[in-house]
Amino acid sequence: MEKLAQLEKEFDYELLTDKEHLEKYARDETPGDYYYIPDAAFLPTETDSITRLLEIAQKSKIPLIPRGGGTSRTGGALAVHGGVVLSLEKMNKIIDFDEKNCILEVQPGVITEEINNFLKKYNFFFPPDPASIDSCSIGGNVATNAGGARCLLYGLTRDYVRGIEVIFPDGKKEFLGGKLKKNATGYSLLNLLIGSEGTLGVITRIFLEVKALPPYSATLVAPFKSLKDAAFSAFNILSSGIIPSAFEMIDEDAVKVAVANLDKKIPMAEEGTLLIAEVLESTKEDLENKFEIIGEKFLENNAVDVFVAEESHQQEKIWDFRRSISEALDIFGTLIPEDISIPRSTIPEFIPEIKKLEKEFNTKIFTFGHIGDGNLHVNIVKNEKWKDDGEKIVNELFKKLNVFGGKISGEHGIGFTKKKYLKYSRSENQIELMKKIKKEFDPMNILNPGKIFDIEEIDA
Amino acid sequence: MEKLAQLEKEFDYELLTDKEHLEKYARDETPGDYYYIPDAAFLPTETDSITRLLEIAQKSKIPLIPRGGGTSRTGGALAVHGGVVLSLEKMNKIIDFDEKNCILEVQPGVITEEINNFLKKYNFFFPPDPASIDSCSIGGNVATNAGGARCLLYGLTRDYVRGIEVIFPDGKKEFLGGKLKKNATGYSLLNLLIGSEGTLGVITRIFLEVKALPPYSATLVAPFKSLKDAAFSAFNILSSGIIPSAFEMIDEDAVKVAVANLDKKIPMAEEGTLLIAEVLESTKEDLENKFEIIGEKFLENNAVDVFVAEESHQQEKIWDFRRSISEALDIFGTLIPEDISIPRSTIPEFIPEIKKLEKEFNTKIFTFGHIGDGNLHVNIVKNEKWKDDGEKIVNELFKKLNVFGGKISGEHGIGFTKKKYLKYSRSENQIELMKKIKKEFDPMNILNPGKIFDIEEIDA
Repeated sequence: MEKLAQLEKEFDYELLTDKEHLEKYARDETPGDYYYIPDAAFLPTETDSITRLLEIAQKSKIPLIPRGGGTSRTGGALAVHGGVVLSLEKMNKIIDFDEKNCILEVQPGVITEEINNFLKKYNFFFPPDPASIDSCSIGGNVATNAGGARCLLYGLTRDYVRGIEVIFPDGKKEFLGGKLKKNATGYSLLNLLIGSEGTLGVITRIFLEVKALPPYSATLVAPFKSLKDAAFSAFNILSSGIIPSAFEMIDEDAVKVAVANLDKKIPMAEEGTLLIAEVLESTKEDLENKFEIIGEKFLENNAVDVFVAEESHQQEKIWDFRRSISEALDIFGTLIPEDISIPRSTIPEFIPEIKKLEKEFNTKIFTFGHIGDGNLHVNIVKNEKWKDDGEKIVNELFKKLNVFGGKISGEHGIGFTKKKYLKYSRSENQIELMKKIKKEFDPMNILNPGKIFDIEEIDA
Repeated sequence: MEKLAQLEKEFDYELLTDKEHLEKYARDETPGDYYYIPDAAFLPTETDSITRLLEIAQKSKIPLIPRGGGTSRTGGALAVHGGVVLSLEKMNKIIDFDEKNCILEVQPGVITEEINNFLKKYNFFFPPDPASIDSCSIGGNVATNAGGARCLLYGLTRDYVRGIEVIFPDGKKEFLGGKLKKNATGYSLLNLLIGSEGTLGVITRIFLEVKALPPYSATLVAPFKSLKDAAFSAFNILSSGIIPSAFEMIDEDAVKVAVANLDKKIPMAEEGTLLIAEVLESTKEDLENKFEIIGEKFLENNAVDVFVAEESHQQEKIWDFRRSISEALDIFGTLIPEDISIPRSTIPEFIPEIKKLEKEFNTKIFTFGHIGDGNLHVNIVKNEKWKDDGEKIVNELFKKLNVFGGKISGEHGIGFTKKKYLKYSRSENQIELMKKIKKEFDPMNILNPGKIFDIEEIDA
């Protein structure tokens, strides 16, 4: 890229251009053959460098791809149109914990797990817990409105972001929100930025509201003979008004792949489709009451057995296993990872629809995820005979989804790989409005071009 | 208005044009001399009429002022540039309660209190509880991201809105979100609409997530000798990790005005500045534990005494008193009602700043509100000698506010009366972006013109 010379002249150690270093930024965690080596990587250590980079990029129309932990499942961190990966990995400081206001101030590159390691000392926690918690960054979490298992009781990333410092594509630094619970001063640009996948601004500082960590926890594991049985059991518990802090499901085949391919064993893993529920309470009595009720309800609803983990290392093992399912399934290099969100009550009816697709397309579909939220990760193994690379089965899945009032993504976002399906979840008019917003914020289309929208749709 | 003939030709019983009926829509609950009689009022009973109205209004550039319960404190519901008040009062049905997904589907004109009356039968509730709960509408709550006392533990309206049907200024009907906890399909137009004060679209249907109502509740009232003592006490309780569901403050002078002017008596009302805390718990034991700790902490922190209400009618009386403070203060017809939001830890330092202003400007300032959230209603009695109608004291207040990291509105919004102060809380660049969004959504500036921005800023 000839424009690179300009950047090289301006920047020193923050800019990487040698192929060896750039390899790291050519992929994210999207399964499949997605490899885009960027022209350069920019690793700022301070906000001023980002401002300067954006000013140059805006003038010379250089694509910039903001990158956190690089854990996108939809190609969100890929340099699909070349340009410079803007990795926030070196801006990884926890700046301040304001215990009086329950606000943690962090740089965007902090790994999400480190936030909880830090807060534990104060008996606080940051509830959203994406499965990639040990490698994703909080900046990426904000940019995608990341979810996780504990959203059921605690909500998503959006619900905890009180303020951000953001650099807009013209290089202007702005602060949105603050250490404030309430803010009714015009349009919530803050909430527009959250979940905009790095296409509207670069987030450089974050103020998170954090919560007191309930001191007692337990994790239940219950196997079921079928996915349908498990789905009904989960639904019966939730509709009786009992809301665990997390309520997850892993179908039998996904469990088997995980057991075979990971060096991670958990109780009951050989017994069928698993439901995993976490209970967090402020007294031991409440904890025991709640997990006993859930355990009984599991058994009433055809669970083969129930295991209750109270020791924290036992619980951690179970959650580590759950969080590793995506990684285990990645051995199928040709997997299509979907991330549907549907009204949770419809899951027992929706599961047979997935089974039908499996049969119809003569393939294997692994389903797991956040059953309590109605957010399921539907992982389709590509059949090599398909000529359309799987588009047909995905279209069929999304057509069914729309009948059930669902959306094509619950937490992974649209990124690069899902944009052709966006029409299933957003009307033409809505997409038009979104594009207009993108153009107003980023008229040169330098920030994460080719994500959410095709590059031509914005450049035109 | 000559354009009125066109509307009269098109619409029948839904359009009111006689002066007598229009009187009702000439004011909202903004204190002071704000009277703007609209050219007409439109009271639709179905969405199709709204679509049609918007199409005509867009073509003929007729200002439309969406109106819920008319409880705005910032002139948000006033026809300041003439036009048609679009009152949603007749679209007031609770459409469906989907208990399985904990989603309540409502029309925008439902009075917020009716939602809770309805949900009580199912042991559910909608937590946000603005003081005007008995007369504000849920549509207005969504349009302003309304708050209330229970935001401290439960969050604001935004946190409960899962989906809306909205008519955009061109008459297009769109559905944003759904019965879904998670939705990562492009920019959150839903969250942009929430809090946009009727300037971007007309909300015609709402899907609210509702919560199981904890069965045990108590309300504590504690008087303090000074506002500063009360503020310190509240802060000490919150920073020890105890978060009541609501934590309110009413300064001594406001209490006195309320006692003198309302036919409402509560215990301790003669004893000084009041703190009121609500505790909601799932067991009686937890309830008692919590209110005992709070009560003790009140006494340790110089409370004169503590009263604990456990009977629901007693508690309701206390909350009714609290909610009536604004109404009581409205006897000062020339009151300037502010609604500041600051980091809650700074309140003990901020209170003396308010006292200084009171002295300096030789007036009376009544302060009350959501001390737990850092959201205080600062009500300045206008001094008739002031030549600038109070602008000077408000400017001084907001200058101090900025030093403390605060915002000029926590929940009332900007509306008509606060737009000249918006610059204290949003940068020029942010306001510019907001205006661009407004112009993209509403190029003819027909929806609530003159709110948040001056009419010339958008029409230009």
